[in-house]
Amino acid sequence: MNEKSKLLQDEFDGIAMYSLAKELFPICRSITGSGVRDSHNLIRKVLPNLVSHEIDSGEKCFDWTIPREWNIKDAYIETLDGLKVVDFKKSNLHVVSYSHPINQVMTLSELDKHLHSRIDMPDAIPYVTSYYKENWGFCLSYNLRKTLREEKYRVVIDSSLNKGSLSYGELIIPGRSKDEILISTYTCHPSMANNEVSGMVVTSFLGKWIQSQKKRKYTYRIIFVPETIGAIAYLSKNLAQLKKNVVAGFVITCVGDDRSYSYMPSRTGNSLADKAVLHAYKKVLKQKFNSYTFLERGSDERQYCHPNVDLPVCSAMRTKYGMYPEYHTSLDNMDLISPLGLYGGFEVNKTALEVLEHNDLYVSTTIGEPWLASRNLRPPLVDGVKMQDRSKNISNLFAFCDGSLDLIDIADILNISVIELANLAKELESYGLLRSILGKN
Amino acid sequence: MNEKSKLLQDEFDGIAMYSLAKELFPICRSITGSGVRDSHNLIRKVLPNLVSHEIDSGEKCFDWTIPREWNIKDAYIETLDGLKVVDFKKSNLHVVSYSHPINQVMTLSELDKHLHSRIDMPDAIPYVTSYYKENWGFCLSYNLRKTLREEKYRVVIDSSLNKGSLSYGELIIPGRSKDEILISTYTCHPSMANNEVSGMVVTSFLGKWIQSQKKRKYTYRIIFVPETIGAIAYLSKNLAQLKKNVVAGFVITCVGDDRSYSYMPSRTGNSLADKAVLHAYKKVLKQKFNSYTFLERGSDERQYCHPNVDLPVCSAMRTKYGMYPEYHTSLDNMDLISPLGLYGGFEVNKTALEVLEHNDLYVSTTIGEPWLASRNLRPPLVDGVKMQDRSKNISNLFAFCDGSLDLIDIADILNISVIELANLAKELESYGLLRSILGKN
Amino acid sequence: MNEKSKLLQDEFDGIAMYSLAKELFPICRSITGSGVRDSHNLIRKVLPNLVSHEIDSGEKCFDWTIPREWNIKDAYIETLDGLKVVDFKKSNLHVVSYSHPINQVMTLSELDKHLHSRIDMPDAIPYVTSYYKENWGFCLSYNLRKTLREEKYRVVIDSSLNKGSLSYGELIIPGRSKDEILISTYTCHPSMANNEVSGMVVTSFLGKWIQSQKKRKYTYRIIFVPETIGAIAYLSKNLAQLKKNVVAGFVITCVGDDRSYSYMPSRTGNSLADKAVLHAYKKVLKQKFNSYTFLERGSDERQYCHPNVDLPVCSAMRTKYGMYPEYHTSLDNMDLISPLGLYGGFEVNKTALEVLEHNDLYVSTTIGEPWLASRNLRPPLVDGVKMQDRSKNISNLFAFCDGSLDLIDIADILNISVIELANLAKELESYGLLRSILGKN
Repeated sequence: MNEKSKLLQDEFDGIAMYSLAKELFPICRSITGSGVRDSHNLIRKVLPNLVSHEIDSGEKCFDWTIPREWNIKDAYIETLDGLKVVDFKKSNLHVVSYSHPINQVMTLSELDKHLHSRIDMPDAIPYVTSYYKENWGFCLSYNLRKTLREEKYRVVIDSSLNKGSLSYGELIIPGRSKDEILISTYTCHPSMANNEVSGMVVTSFLGKWIQSQKKRKYTYRIIFVPETIGAIAYLSKNLAQLKKNVVAGFVITCVGDDRSYSYMPSRTGNSLADKAVLHAYKKVLKQKFNSYTFLERGSDERQYCHPNVDLPVCSAMRTKYGMYPEYHTSLDNMDLISPLGLYGGFEVNKTALEVLEHNDLYVSTTIGEPWLASRNLRPPLVDGVKMQDRSKNISNLFAFCDGSLDLIDIADILNISVIELANLAKELESYGLLRSILGKN
Repeated sequence: MNEKSKLLQDEFDGIAMYSLAKELFPICRSITGSGVRDSHNLIRKVLPNLVSHEIDSGEKCFDWTIPREWNIKDAYIETLDGLKVVDFKKSNLHVVSYSHPINQVMTLSELDKHLHSRIDMPDAIPYVTSYYKENWGFCLSYNLRKTLREEKYRVVIDSSLNKGSLSYGELIIPGRSKDEILISTYTCHPSMANNEVSGMVVTSFLGKWIQSQKKRKYTYRIIFVPETIGAIAYLSKNLAQLKKNVVAGFVITCVGDDRSYSYMPSRTGNSLADKAVLHAYKKVLKQKFNSYTFLERGSDERQYCHPNVDLPVCSAMRTKYGMYPEYHTSLDNMDLISPLGLYGGFEVNKTALEVLEHNDLYVSTTIGEPWLASRNLRPPLVDGVKMQDRSKNISNLFAFCDGSLDLIDIADILNISVIELANLAKELESYGLLRSILGKN
Repeated sequence: MNEKSKLLQDEFDGIAMYSLAKELFPICRSITGSGVRDSHNLIRKVLPNLVSHEIDSGEKCFDWTIPREWNIKDAYIETLDGLKVVDFKKSNLHVVSYSHPINQVMTLSELDKHLHSRIDMPDAIPYVTSYYKENWGFCLSYNLRKTLREEKYRVVIDSSLNKGSLSYGELIIPGRSKDEILISTYTCHPSMANNEVSGMVVTSFLGKWIQSQKKRKYTYRIIFVPETIGAIAYLSKNLAQLKKNVVAGFVITCVGDDRSYSYMPSRTGNSLADKAVLHAYKKVLKQKFNSYTFLERGSDERQYCHPNVDLPVCSAMRTKYGMYPEYHTSLDNMDLISPLGLYGGFEVNKTALEVLEHNDLYVSTTIGEPWLASRNLRPPLVDGVKMQDRSKNISNLFAFCDGSLDLIDIADILNISVIELANLAKELESYGLLRSILGKN
């Protein structure tokens, strides 16, 4: 089945994802402020039961302090004739995030110290922030900047920096087990599509899909946090619970373009989350992907995999942050992502969840192989030339279910999908020939 | 010394092995019945003290039940004119093993449902069994099958399926230690030479050779069992003893042709048996071989290496079952095996046993290297340009005898035969410079 | 900076090393005798506080006994006309070390049994010893030997073998910690330059350099011992102390020529000493080197790495003993070594010590990454396109300081010098963001 036909068949289709992305894209988000709350409201179209939480400015979260809330109504640079040469209404990337308010006429040379552009990408507006140092600034394309010729300009930023709160979204979907899978994405990026409207979109649809799976084993904890400060804040409120229950976690980021697939390991690289993503790519989807090292990380696994947090969290992405030229500029726009790209980002993460849901730890119950013929579990006539795949898999399950290898491990050895293998294991379990030794809590 | 000259010098020569094979070949064996007992009697020509044991039909062995005993006097398909077109007397592969008796005239189309042939090997009679599902059938070459044109045939199978017993042979050869080496082969295959007349032959001569070794360390447990059910049955009667005493084991199978050498690892691949076979191939015989994975297993290591049995058992073969075109057909005949082939199969397994007999675990007794000159253990004049091999090996023994590496490990590191190294270690032990820390029970 | 310019800048320069080598070269050393004491006196020009110790002939040291002391005044072979054809005064290699005295006229054929030369190196005088078997002999070039034509020669060796003592030198340089680094070289080789005048020279200058480092963490134990018997004797007097305190050690040998660099691992290959040398070569000096295996060892790591001694000792060399044609002959002379060669041998070992001095074991003190912006530890404006190296290293330190990886391990992962990383870690420690968990004893 090719990717296109999947889009048409699946209720969790890329076209719906792309529609949500289009609604989320224009909002001016930052680590705090109304843009985050507006985004939550749009996400609730897909995840109606998403709960928004607020943490007050000034609250200590581990080593950090929640900053003042930033909001912005308008911003522009205009000539003294009233011609707007840079206009926040055209792109919210034009303003350095957390710029304090200003309304002033200044010379071009004064203004120039507050301008940001990229000579290597002369058409792109770069994305710049100054969360923790009071400042203001404008970002604009290098080509536009070159055209500024007036002696003086009026500079207006109609922003506010006040006591307020940091907002994050949380949805806990209970399963049979208290063991949790953490899914985390971030809500602080303004109008950029792959990084990071795509994360919010795919996470929303993952949540919808999880809720549609009625027999789920795991409890799912889905969070929408501002990057870094939001992850830290969330950890500060939930660390004990997370450390007790989370068996695997995924940072959902850069899941919207359709140029490639990527994998960012956890710090150890061998957590259950890593196993699930690698198995999903290699054995279930048979999808090539770029493998990065933990040295190339750059999102909230920085917090989740910190040695004093130490959660088993990795990432399955489309084209990784920092690895595409449009990254962190206005060129990371709605043309960069696509229904197919979003669907692929959704699919690999969904598949990793399916891998985890199908995983189990079995032991063989018989001493030596069981008498399969007595249960009609093998063909009556044996010519021994070529064992059928099914018979081989049965034999191998008995051989490798030694209590140390879980089904993902065994499926990796057998070079098959754990989803297929789990069905076979269930059948053998129904005959009493395998027994799960996973705590069924 | 080339292989041919060894054949002439050695009392355990391939020509004697081939003679025994010729006698064993024609017998119609199955998992039960008189064919197995007749084979035991022939084996007793080489191993007079082989003991035959019987387990009654209906007895439970772990998950399995001993089946009824199957015997067969004659079988044929003849035209109504009395012309035998398929005749068991010409090849016992013509009858599906465990076929129930029949004597009936039937149409060709009825008969055809009970015929087995291989279109990919049109001259070969395939080997088919139906141990655990009542059935009957004939196997014949595809070319012969094509010639069947009559409307009706008389079909006769003069077999019996009655309460009786399953037979296995056992020979325990005591050594200084209670630690045991298990040698297992199987006796259930009808007229096929490499698989598995060769296993019975080579195992017999291994037993004879072991008995000729008067200073043996290990106790040897040699068993001739029907494959699968026989191994299961044997385990069910001896499991505690085996798990307590067996330090290494070998399934002897497909050891008769002279096309290649093969190695099938144990489940873990790192047992003492694996180490011995790999060292025998690489360092003692310097013999190339094909290495398979445990996924390609297919004989009684399926039972011995089952996680709830977990014995350290592997196989050193000539051309592995399933890897040659004649496998499980009438073309696996006496032309496929040879004196040289059998001798090679014997030699690699015998060498693995020698490796084990020479293995030991030593520790150095001195702090720093000992004063070799005071014991005339090194040349008096030293020019230090090139240490002699003997001096190097002595120095390395002291360096690596740290209580964690056994002699096989050290010989592997030094890239020499453990048999040679063991002699040197014995000499140093006689000076008190090495001390064995293996329990000498 | 190229090697030549370093020579001119550094007070520990290769030219001073070469001068000391020239003074040490002519002395006739053996495992005992005045040549060793004379060498100590020369070394004291660089290391005034070197202490000489004596162990009496006949004293037991583990398995060994200190031999009689050997001294030699003169030796020659002369024709009956008084023409000296072989003269110890021209090269002390002419006499087999530990030759007993002789003064006798003998036929050439009698004499010939006591002559040693190398047909493969016809111009070289080989180096031969007979420490532990009473004997005498002369070494001479093959070309010279061919010219001996007289019927009879007078053979004179004016040596003495009497009760005396074995001498070794020791210098302990205390540091903040009782943990010790052992540096060992050997003093028993007569006039050969790379093996082993270079070891004495480089060790002397390492000692001088260590004393110039006022903030040193470790205590340094520098010893000058005759090879083998001296190392054994030293171990017999200091084993408990060494095993308690030594965290890394280095045998300094063959550190004078400028053809290559070499590494001889410890027995395990993964000791702290190995880590330090490998890091020095790969990450600090970025210097290619030849890696040998422990099977190719040949100096006092034979004693230090013996399993019942088990000290973490390896070697960083220039061209390794046994790997250059002039080895153990008169061609290993002052032309074979050079100021650059000696400086390079000094530098790699000094760098390994610096690596150890900079190493530490830190843990992150925060939960999640710390708020760097609040401490001005990161740039205020973030465009996220390319993290600066410094920011990356800071982030990685927090990620990998998990209490299991030391700074060398982390620097290896980050592919940077631990010396650079340690400075960064100290800075973060000053903010309380990292905490050392190494015992600061």
